[in-house]
Amino acid sequence: MLVSSTPYRTIWPHGDLVRIIDQRRLPWSFELLDLHNVAEVAHAIRDMAVRGAGLIGATAGYGMALAAREAATPEALADFAAELVATRPTAVNLSWAVQRQLHAIQMGGFEHRVEIARLEAEKIADEDAAACAAIGQHGFRLIQEIAERKPGQVVNVLTHCNAGWLAFVDHGSATSPIYAAHAADIPIHVWVDETRPRNQGARLTAWELGQQGVPHTVVADNTGGHLMQHGLVDLVITGADRVTRCGDVANKIGTYLKALAARDNAIPFYVALPSSTFDWTLRDGVREIPIEQRGADEVTHLEGVDEQGQVQTLRIVSAGSPAANYGFDVTPARLITGLITERGVCAANEAAISAMHPR
Amino acid sequence: MLVSSTPYRTIWPHGDLVRIIDQRRLPWSFELLDLHNVAEVAHAIRDMAVRGAGLIGATAGYGMALAAREAATPEALADFAAELVATRPTAVNLSWAVQRQLHAIQMGGFEHRVEIARLEAEKIADEDAAACAAIGQHGFRLIQEIAERKPGQVVNVLTHCNAGWLAFVDHGSATSPIYAAHAADIPIHVWVDETRPRNQGARLTAWELGQQGVPHTVVADNTGGHLMQHGLVDLVITGADRVTRCGDVANKIGTYLKALAARDNAIPFYVALPSSTFDWTLRDGVREIPIEQRGADEVTHLEGVDEQGQVQTLRIVSAGSPAANYGFDVTPARLITGLITERGVCAANEAAISAMHPR
Repeated sequence: MLVSSTPYRTIWPHGDLVRIIDQRRLPWSFELLDLHNVAEVAHAIRDMAVRGAGLIGATAGYGMALAAREAATPEALADFAAELVATRPTAVNLSWAVQRQLHAIQMGGFEHRVEIARLEAEKIADEDAAACAAIGQHGFRLIQEIAERKPGQVVNVLTHCNAGWLAFVDHGSATSPIYAAHAADIPIHVWVDETRPRNQGARLTAWELGQQGVPHTVVADNTGGHLMQHGLVDLVITGADRVTRCGDVANKIGTYLKALAARDNAIPFYVALPSSTFDWTLRDGVREIPIEQRGADEVTHLEGVDEQGQVQTLRIVSAGSPAANYGFDVTPARLITGLITERGVCAANEAAISAMHPR
Repeated sequence: MLVSSTPYRTIWPHGDLVRIIDQRRLPWSFELLDLHNVAEVAHAIRDMAVRGAGLIGATAGYGMALAAREAATPEALADFAAELVATRPTAVNLSWAVQRQLHAIQMGGFEHRVEIARLEAEKIADEDAAACAAIGQHGFRLIQEIAERKPGQVVNVLTHCNAGWLAFVDHGSATSPIYAAHAADIPIHVWVDETRPRNQGARLTAWELGQQGVPHTVVADNTGGHLMQHGLVDLVITGADRVTRCGDVANKIGTYLKALAARDNAIPFYVALPSSTFDWTLRDGVREIPIEQRGADEVTHLEGVDEQGQVQTLRIVSAGSPAANYGFDVTPARLITGLITERGVCAANEAAISAMHPR
């Protein structure tokens, strides 16, 4: 997608290195960062220089390409794989990409590991971009239908967190239908949940929608219910970090609350995801998906820019008060109107998911 | 309640002036502010040096006492009254207190206005404090019942925004049962919603709970649903800015989302309010209660303290992205387990409310 009118991906190979957009700096500054080895890749994932289900998977894929060069033995390669998988617990794409690389190297032979892993990393990234493009086309039809029901009026979409192109290799999941509709001149406006903590909506989604010229308004996470009560939301689309075979969705904390409000106001609630985000081993998301707890400082402190444009971090919670930081929640399938994957739109239940995604 | 172990109210007469705790400075510093005339009172309400349903009402009451001294004619007094009522649109206590003062002066005679208004302001403040104390005793029994069902275990209460003593003259509404339970040695822990924008939870509720020694944890507003799904919340208590005769509750934006989550997880959801918060003229809260829209800068910028303890304000939203700031939402009565007023606990419907609060 566009950054200052120039097309970018979020990650790409650069000689023997991996180059990423350092998302910790956005939106205050646009900076690229080179990752030289597995340790740097693991740190980039853990510290959220890269984040988002698809991009974590792609980064792990490129990380395994670096691991293949660093590892002299299959045991060393397995250790690097474990190091990458341990960086974040909730997104399933991480272990999916690492396992895919290990499998490819095992099939092709350990002596060919460098070339195999390099190609596989490219394939993972390209497939992620292609899946997101396909999600855009399938989701576009949902927006088009709404636009046809209210000709000449703006279609209002609410989204939570950043399931934009910054969370993938390109296009995004939740944003891809929005970009497709905008490109087709459907009048569209996006309510961007600020998305505490870490504020990925206010920082990343707002930034990337602005870069593509999509009209949008940032609101506090508390606002969605009121907007829905007053007819100001036509459609909710979020992303997902892990989806069970039965359609329960782990996504950024707070997604569940928006799904409840959508249900209470009869507003369609869709989750967009590449099928790599399905965890076929799980059924009950609330009971089975591990929810990452991150540092309390992400709640007690917040980064922004002062009037001089300098990045600063302030304490925003009363001194001495403890804080807790749950990264994700699980939206039960019963609250989800449908899942938008690269294969199409299906209901959030095991039969429909399996029928559309045979394995 | 206690500030550094000394008992305070949020507002009190000081000679011919009105003295308040300047809540814009909390929790970074504890500062008192003197209000000399109606214009300063109006500014203090509008700029939220004082805020919260009960305290806005009490401040308007004291403001009318100043108005009585400033106004040479009934017309001038009416102008001051209008100036105060216009400061904030959602909290009904504001116009309730102003009307009560006008009525008292009309009954007692304009020539006695200074003494009448002075006494009436004291009565309004004292009644607010007494109502909150009574709310505490009624709500205490709800907490006690939960504690008896899980002996030796901590009772977890979730609250949103600040319906604490800082929002009233003393004790608070939602916090009053919590303080009563804590005083009775019931083991209690409070999940404090950060409460964007303006962060009254992270700033005010966390601060006042800390000052009274009540265990608590600040969480992002997005977190409550996850906590409820996992059995970490026994009871939700919020305050209210205006409640219709049918039990619909206008309260800080995001309250509705917590009520939906409580319902989805079969967790009791109570709203605590002095009966001065009822608006007997309204039935359908979603349709009839005006919702204040405040400046976008409360969403795009945030105040905190740096490592040196200096108060600073940072931009936290991507530059160029617009923001919207709805201050309140309406929780339909159907989602509310009960209302806790100074008269007792009643169901959130017209019959039960009217039976307990005859007029």
